[in-house]
Amino acid sequence: MALITLTTDFGTGSPYAAAIKGVIYSLNPAATVVDISHEIPAQDIRHAAVILDEVTDLFPPGSIHVVVVDPGVGTDRGLVFVRIGRQNYLAPDNGVLSRLARRKTPAKIVRLTEGRYWLHPVSATFHGRDILAPVAARLSLELDPDWLGVAQETLVMLDWPEVTAKPQTIRGSVLLIDGFGNLITDITAEILADRPKDRPLRVSCAGRSVEGLCRTYGDRPDGTLVALIGSGGRLELAVVGGHAAGLLKARVGEPVVVEWK
Amino acid sequence: MALITLTTDFGTGSPYAAAIKGVIYSLNPAATVVDISHEIPAQDIRHAAVILDEVTDLFPPGSIHVVVVDPGVGTDRGLVFVRIGRQNYLAPDNGVLSRLARRKTPAKIVRLTEGRYWLHPVSATFHGRDILAPVAARLSLELDPDWLGVAQETLVMLDWPEVTAKPQTIRGSVLLIDGFGNLITDITAEILADRPKDRPLRVSCAGRSVEGLCRTYGDRPDGTLVALIGSGGRLELAVVGGHAAGLLKARVGEPVVVEWK
Amino acid sequence: MALITLTTDFGTGSPYAAAIKGVIYSLNPAATVVDISHEIPAQDIRHAAVILDEVTDLFPPGSIHVVVVDPGVGTDRGLVFVRIGRQNYLAPDNGVLSRLARRKTPAKIVRLTEGRYWLHPVSATFHGRDILAPVAARLSLELDPDWLGVAQETLVMLDWPEVTAKPQTIRGSVLLIDGFGNLITDITAEILADRPKDRPLRVSCAGRSVEGLCRTYGDRPDGTLVALIGSGGRLELAVVGGHAAGLLKARVGEPVVVEWK
Repeated sequence: MALITLTTDFGTGSPYAAAIKGVIYSLNPAATVVDISHEIPAQDIRHAAVILDEVTDLFPPGSIHVVVVDPGVGTDRGLVFVRIGRQNYLAPDNGVLSRLARRKTPAKIVRLTEGRYWLHPVSATFHGRDILAPVAARLSLELDPDWLGVAQETLVMLDWPEVTAKPQTIRGSVLLIDGFGNLITDITAEILADRPKDRPLRVSCAGRSVEGLCRTYGDRPDGTLVALIGSGGRLELAVVGGHAAGLLKARVGEPVVVEWK
Repeated sequence: MALITLTTDFGTGSPYAAAIKGVIYSLNPAATVVDISHEIPAQDIRHAAVILDEVTDLFPPGSIHVVVVDPGVGTDRGLVFVRIGRQNYLAPDNGVLSRLARRKTPAKIVRLTEGRYWLHPVSATFHGRDILAPVAARLSLELDPDWLGVAQETLVMLDWPEVTAKPQTIRGSVLLIDGFGNLITDITAEILADRPKDRPLRVSCAGRSVEGLCRTYGDRPDGTLVALIGSGGRLELAVVGGHAAGLLKARVGEPVVVEWK
Repeated sequence: MALITLTTDFGTGSPYAAAIKGVIYSLNPAATVVDISHEIPAQDIRHAAVILDEVTDLFPPGSIHVVVVDPGVGTDRGLVFVRIGRQNYLAPDNGVLSRLARRKTPAKIVRLTEGRYWLHPVSATFHGRDILAPVAARLSLELDPDWLGVAQETLVMLDWPEVTAKPQTIRGSVLLIDGFGNLITDITAEILADRPKDRPLRVSCAGRSVEGLCRTYGDRPDGTLVALIGSGGRLELAVVGGHAAGLLKARVGEPVVVEWK
């Protein structure tokens, strides 16, 4: 039976997350519900989009990922079922799936219109509880997603900064700051692999530079700013035993440049 | 098999919540344990009472809701099993169930006195782990609640502000502030439904007023103070894309007035 | 089937914890995964060591406790499977198990070297996801821990302050500060039980003294500094309805003295 995950901006311990779980378990008492995060910054669709792209592929094939970061709740923005690769998503069609969808074209998009699978009366402000939760529970009980509504061709896509590679320079930006203050960039190991292997690298961000990549945090003394390929396969700036975002006063979107001679 | 939920003021990530789960799983390894919240403000019985009233009805019939907001632990305050509607509660008898119990009279109250179902030695400071957790686990394994102790007629009831409705005015107050800063009031959609439908409303709180109700947050531009019926069926004040509690410097208990001509 | 717990310094809601769960459920969709805490202060091995010692014994025999507080990730520090009493642990060999191991000698230590049970490619910075998670999932499916690698005799042990007992004085220190601000010391009820029962006690910490032990918080008026035996069987300083750590400006390691005449 399919596992259900939750990703929201409710804050951990919010009764809203509990409400969603209550609805799911009421319809499917044997459900397995896993919190991905309730700590998405309020209404930060981009942050959620990056997190979903980083972790959902690690879940079992057929998992149902419920996403409630939904500043447009109750307006005419759609709610969608989307299959991308071997994972399923239930989310507002507001761009929150647009990093996943630009990496791999969705195999199926269904706009949720069949009210028979919803919790009634449907509130105007909490579709996560009234629409997404009961639909997720029913999908976990093998409901065919084609029954949920009408097929849709494309998703709302957000613009994301592009990584540009020139002969001796790669330009990208900070994509995410993790809980340790590490700056995770949109420059992947694949992009870096294209440069000549014998040239020393310099990585620059927010007025600071690092020469060369290290392999892991513990390779350098505490307090050192280092650049490395992080666990998600991305170039990352970190301070050993410290907090890079604080030291560099860097935020999401901060430009990052990799150069070699 | 009954699902067990936890509502405490321990703080997310507290080892005390983990201790309760350890005890439950030790007695019933097949238990399903769901966190409602560990973010109840320390010893805030009223906050917990409101949250329980808002979300527990969404859980499957027969669920067992364990509540550990217990400033009187180890004193002579009782611990009780309570059935209200189709839900079961295990909690200190300190008023934390008094919003639920004033909406619907409990069908059963049992004071926990049968020590054979507890974890021994019972500490003086952590009855959640030593009494409520093992009792919850045993109830989830079909123990008859009548065996837990002695029947009790009534619960400790807290005073709650009353909502008063006059010909052209409804007076209530802020009941809860959610994680988005929305001010959730004790004025329900049912109370509002009694007014004449064709008269424009004014909602006032903390020196600010809003004309009319909107249907959802996205109906107004960012930064607008709005009044609406929230997902729990209550009048709510919110700032679109912002934080109403911060803007209005409002706290729980702040008076809210609805007027019409 | 064995239950799996997680203890990390990722922060609640971190996608890193979700990544570990994704890997576990992908290998064992029927797993039961319980969060002990993701709120260990960053890289605070000692804090994690104390928490693990306090709560893991409450879990069912055979549980698998995964610990990711790992400042040395990717260096030559080992990762180990350890059996202590009836519990199993998967952790970096950095002292995080050293409070458990000094209380009870490990029955088995296996250094993880058999890459066939890991997720490949193994990153240099996230062994929790790439090594510990898949190994935990496989152990929960009955893999024999002897297959994980090579037997090892001892663990890395940290120095912990000793409690010293003299004829009229016991000297210890603050071991942990809980979410209520209670100061939990390394002076156990057993140590205290050795003193003459008829002599009044004085407990001193950070320039403040308390005469006598009380039984529970509610025995004294709000705002009173009290000393008591807490739920973990340890001497504890607390402020009734308040925050002892804030009032006394005390930190972990602060000396605590118990005296009698």
